[in-house]
This record gives sequence, structure tokens and C-alpha cells, in this order.
Amino acid sequence: MTTREDAPTQPPRELIDARMVKLRAALRERQIEALLINGNENKGWISAFTTGVFVAPGGAIIVTQNDAAFVTSHVDYEECIHGVPHMTTVPFDHFTEELHDRVAAVAAQYGIREINIESPHMSVAEADKYADRFGRHGITLERGAPVVTALRQAKDAWEIEQIVEANKVNHRAFTEVLALLKPGMSEWDISAELEYRLRKYGTGSARLAFQSIVASGPNSALPHASVTHRRLQDGDFLKFDFGATWNGYHSDCTRTVVIGKASERQKAIYNAVLNAQLESIAAITNGGSCAAVNQVALDALTKAGFGDYIGHGLGHGIGLQIHEDPRQSVTSKDVYQPGCIVTVEPGLYVAGWGGVRIEDNILVTEDGIVNLTLSPKELIEIGA
Amino acid sequence: MTTREDAPTQPPRELIDARMVKLRAALRERQIEALLINGNENKGWISAFTTGVFVAPGGAIIVTQNDAAFVTSHVDYEECIHGVPHMTTVPFDHFTEELHDRVAAVAAQYGIREINIESPHMSVAEADKYADRFGRHGITLERGAPVVTALRQAKDAWEIEQIVEANKVNHRAFTEVLALLKPGMSEWDISAELEYRLRKYGTGSARLAFQSIVASGPNSALPHASVTHRRLQDGDFLKFDFGATWNGYHSDCTRTVVIGKASERQKAIYNAVLNAQLESIAAITNGGSCAAVNQVALDALTKAGFGDYIGHGLGHGIGLQIHEDPRQSVTSKDVYQPGCIVTVEPGLYVAGWGGVRIEDNILVTEDGIVNLTLSPKELIEIGA
Repeated sequence: MTTREDAPTQPPRELIDARMVKLRAALRERQIEALLINGNENKGWISAFTTGVFVAPGGAIIVTQNDAAFVTSHVDYEECIHGVPHMTTVPFDHFTEELHDRVAAVAAQYGIREINIESPHMSVAEADKYADRFGRHGITLERGAPVVTALRQAKDAWEIEQIVEANKVNHRAFTEVLALLKPGMSEWDISAELEYRLRKYGTGSARLAFQSIVASGPNSALPHASVTHRRLQDGDFLKFDFGATWNGYHSDCTRTVVIGKASERQKAIYNAVLNAQLESIAAITNGGSCAAVNQVALDALTKAGFGDYIGHGLGHGIGLQIHEDPRQSVTSKDVYQPGCIVTVEPGLYVAGWGGVRIEDNILVTEDGIVNLTLSPKELIEIGA
Repeated sequence: MTTREDAPTQPPRELIDARMVKLRAALRERQIEALLINGNENKGWISAFTTGVFVAPGGAIIVTQNDAAFVTSHVDYEECIHGVPHMTTVPFDHFTEELHDRVAAVAAQYGIREINIESPHMSVAEADKYADRFGRHGITLERGAPVVTALRQAKDAWEIEQIVEANKVNHRAFTEVLALLKPGMSEWDISAELEYRLRKYGTGSARLAFQSIVASGPNSALPHASVTHRRLQDGDFLKFDFGATWNGYHSDCTRTVVIGKASERQKAIYNAVLNAQLESIAAITNGGSCAAVNQVALDALTKAGFGDYIGHGLGHGIGLQIHEDPRQSVTSKDVYQPGCIVTVEPGLYVAGWGGVRIEDNILVTEDGIVNLTLSPKELIEIGA
């Protein structure tokens, strides 16, 4: 079993190299001479450095068919310079030099004539600055679609292992917190206990996957409820949405429990959500349509008589980001690929009364699916 | 005393209105007809809604001389729709409509002909999408400089109070963690204990200011060290960099302690950093140059004989973001204004041996400064 202390923080070298091979093939296919990678998670994926204070260190990465360089400040990111084995690291002194100037100089040295940015991952102001600096070397900046983002959809074996481990942390933390619950405890204190455990039992990246939701009673009817100081009351729904990280990879779990004995209406809504979740998980297939699976959940919830209380789409990919492609929504054009890990999280929200969401992380394989989430889904009645 | 439960989550209405007055004056001065606010913290500042799962809800804000609207999904951000008292909230159904379309329709309804974006706060891809949608209504999108960001430098009385409270949380959490330290404890477990307290004792925004740094022994020589499972040893420097939030506002504190008795060299380096910090804090004046104060620290460290170990500039503003203007660095053109709150955090880093950073949060007033950080700065020797 992997323990926190001995878990390797980077994939084996052959998987790191395989990512570079995939990226270069994608660049050839799209006839892109050079790519400037600026988004944190995209830098983290291609550099395999995801354990720092940030998802990936500050700086930028240039990749061509022959060259690859991580340009970063040597003062701030000493760890990166030694932690990226497969590309040239170009340290610079941020006291005397500016990143954008140095990146442009490296591109010129590589003989690059045109360089693409990934448009969703760079601000307008930064793109203008890069365009100016590249221009001084006669290099054209091309505002293109994301390339790395698309490659990140299908996780490699090491990435899957990280998300499996992050799911184990979720289960351990949630199980312990369930044992603490009683009427009178506040959402705020429950969330602090949960997050303490999610952080303590993770490794590699000392952060949560996202700010947890702990929403009780009427607050549970808000899909993105803020954590408040409301105290648990008998009869409340209590909705948890939480995730740990393991070497920078995210897990994402939602569970809803009842404080005390569940009412008939609570049971009916809970079972409708659970049934919709089970049916949509069963509908996921390698190569299948994400929009079609989303529709399975919508149909199940509507058929159960709760169509008016549907709040959102079925879920999203997870990985180095908490929200990635593919998306499972009405308008999605995505299909499931082997190695995708998606959340399946239908919900029902009755304003002023309460809501239920149940969420698992599902790995798509060549010939089926694996549910990575370990916590049980039968309705739990706390202290009933 | 403000307690977590009764602390108001928003400023008094007159301060909210004063922000809008300031923004409109800035727009007139810059001859901007309409501003599209997309950056989370800028949305949070003008909407005064900063307590949710995100800094501010998804969506976008339009401000003109006569109108102000927060366009957001009614499903996801029900809380926002009721939590923004001073502008029109325009809820839309994200199942059937897209944000960018709805924002453009609202702009058209307001009779806007040209709308500015804040270029550092919007991606190239999103700006292209907005330009297209606005264009369908004959509205021109102008890629401008940030407007709200500059206004956020000078904090109002309510904002200062939030950062004062966030600093109290820091002191309470840090004091408790100091009492837990002993040789053999791991950086990882120390950081989990610290973050648990930072989260538990805060309010309003259930998140940390940033991922804490807990770096021991040689790791303390890395300014942005990752948290590892390294265990404390006698003679280690132990560097903490951490912050709580209070209603979305950040605090930022660094302290360095020694495990056991400090050596003469540790004392010399510690005192050089402390002296540089005290001298630079004393040099801060309303209207003074940030670069000049940065130079005071550099000179003090160099004069003490440690010029080779300087790692970074003196510090940054804090507020809704952990890194804001003004910047105190060699190249900064910023001056201190009343209401600015800056970090003063000189450091020395000896590779492979260890490092020291000491950081306080300094409020600039009309006629002086107030140090908001409560934890002591004399060298602490744990268990010595």
C-alpha cells in the first residue's frame, strides 16, 4: 500500500516521456510550430511537477518538435529546476530580467517563427505583452485553441492511481466526520473537521481539491451553498461536497445524510436522486455520448416526479483541475474516452426546504467503468 | 468584540455605495462609457458579495454612469441574487441560455455602444467570445487597463476591520501550533494543525488565504517551499508562512523559529532579517515610494553582510487577493496611499542550510502606519 511518506510525487519517466510524445503529435496534426504553455495545470501535466505551493511553478513552457524548455525564476522555483527531468530548465533572475523577455529570447534561440498560445489560459493583457516581446525577435504570436487541455482528458495509469488515492482520503475523512455529527454542531465546525482530515491524509500537494460545501437544512437547497454558522437540527438534510488531493490530483465526492429519522418526502427525493445516479452511471460507455448520459439522469428525475427541482448538469471530468472536460450536460458534444474520470452528481433542490446531491468519481475503461468512490450511498440517518 | 457568528458579512450600505461612486468617477475620468467586470475579486469588491464558495459568484457585472447589473445563473448563485442590494441582479437559466449572450443583451438594453474589459482579468478566449456577442448588438469591446483593481488599493474602514480580524485569527492559530511543536513532528502534520485552526477561527469565506508554507531545516532555504513529510530535528530553522480569511479578506504572516537552541549563525541571520524588517517598516510613509522602502531593506541586509542571500522583493498589498498592488520591489512605481495594507517580508536564504523570513501586515494611514500583525518577532527557540 502506498503511504503518504513513500508515495512517489512524479510518474515513472516513461509516462512523462509519453506525454511529450502525445503533445508533439498533436502539434504536428494541428500544424503548430511551437506552443507556449501558460496555464498552471497544463504546465503541471507536461512538466510532471505538481506538488509545489502552486499547481505548477510560475513561468512558462515552450515546446517544439525538437526542443522543450521551462523558463522560471531561479529564486522562487529552485525545486522546479531540479524536479523537471525531461526538458531544459531555463532559470532567470527576476530581479534583473522579466519572464516575457526571457521566454521570447529562448524562442528566438530555438529559431521559432510562429508560436501559439492556448487562448483560454492566458489573459488579454499577458497575450499583448508576449506579442510585443516575441515581435521584437520577428516571432508571430498566434491565439489558438488549447492543445494540452484536450490531451489531459484521458488519464495515464499513474494519474488514475493518484485519483484512486485521493478517493481513499475522502472516504477516510468522511467516515471519521460522520462519527462526530450531532444536533447543535455548526456547518462551520463540521467543515473545519472535514477539511482538517482531507488535508492531513493527503500528500504531495498540501491543498484541498476545493472549498468544501457543508450545507444543512434549507441551505442544502443551494447547489453552491456558502458554509455558515447554522447549527444542525433534527430532521435536517446535511449535504457534503468535498475533495482531497494526492500529488496535485483531485477527488470530488458529494453525500447527503439526514440528521435523525428521514421523513417520507426526504426518502422519496433521496431515492430519486440515487436512482438517477445509478442509472446514469450504468449508461456510461467507452465512446458514448456525454449528453446522452446526462439525459438519462434528467429523464429519471423527471419520471420520479421531481423535474421542477433539477439544478444542474450531470458532472465534469476531474484531474489536475476540479472541473475539466469532458462535460456531461445538455449542450455537451463530448464523448467518453478510456482514462476519463468524470463525476456523476445528479441533484434535486427544493428552495427553502432542502436538497440532495450524490456524487461519485467514475473511471471509463476500454470495456467498462470503475467507480472510484468508496463511501456508501444508502441513506444514512444520523443518530436515528 | 466581533464573534464569528455575529460578524456582518457585508460592509454598511454607505460604504458599498461609496465604492460605486468611486468607480463611476474613475470611469468618467478615463472616458469609459461602460465597464465589464469579470475578475472574481473585482466583482466581489463592487458587489460586496465575498463570502460564497468562490470569491464572488460566477457571472459578470456591467457598470455605466446610470446602470449597474450583476448577471448570474439563478440556479448556481441564488445567494448572490439576494445578497447584492445595490445593483440590478439579472438571473438567467444556464440550461437554456449562455452568460455571454445574456450579458450582451443587457448591455444592448442599457444602450451601451462601447464596453471596456479589464485586460488582465479576462482570457483571450473569453474576450473573443464577448467581442462576438457584443458585436451582434453593434457594441464595440475595448481591451482596457484594469479600473477596479486600482481602486481596491486603498481599503475602506470595513475592509481594514476584516484584515484586522484575519490577523487575530493568525495569531490565535499560530500561538496554539507553537505549543504543539517538538522534534519528530512532520512539516505535513504541523501544516495540517495550523490550517485547521486558521479555517476554524475564521468566518464568512470558508477558505485559507493561501496554501501555508511549513518548511524545516534545509527546506526553509526555499522561499516557496512545498510542504513535505520531513520531520523536525534539533537545530532546524522552521519557517511558517500562513494566512486566514475573514469575509473574504486575507492576512499574511511569516514567522521563523528554531527547534532547540539557536546557533550564533542562526542568530546573526535572524537578527539581520528582523533589523531589515524594522527599518523598512519605519521608512513607510503616506505618499512615499515603495521602491525606496524596498531599498531600505536591501541596504540593511547587504550592510549586515548577507547581500548574497536575498531572495525576493519586500512585499505586496493584501485585500481580497493575497497579492495586490502596491508592490515593493526594485522596479515598482507605486506609492503608499492611506488605506493600503502591505506585507513587509524581507528574507535571507542560504541554499542547503536554511532561511529566515519575517512578515507583518502594515496599514498605511494619513499620518503614519499601524502594524496589524500580533505575533511576537523575537527569536523563539522551541524547547531550548
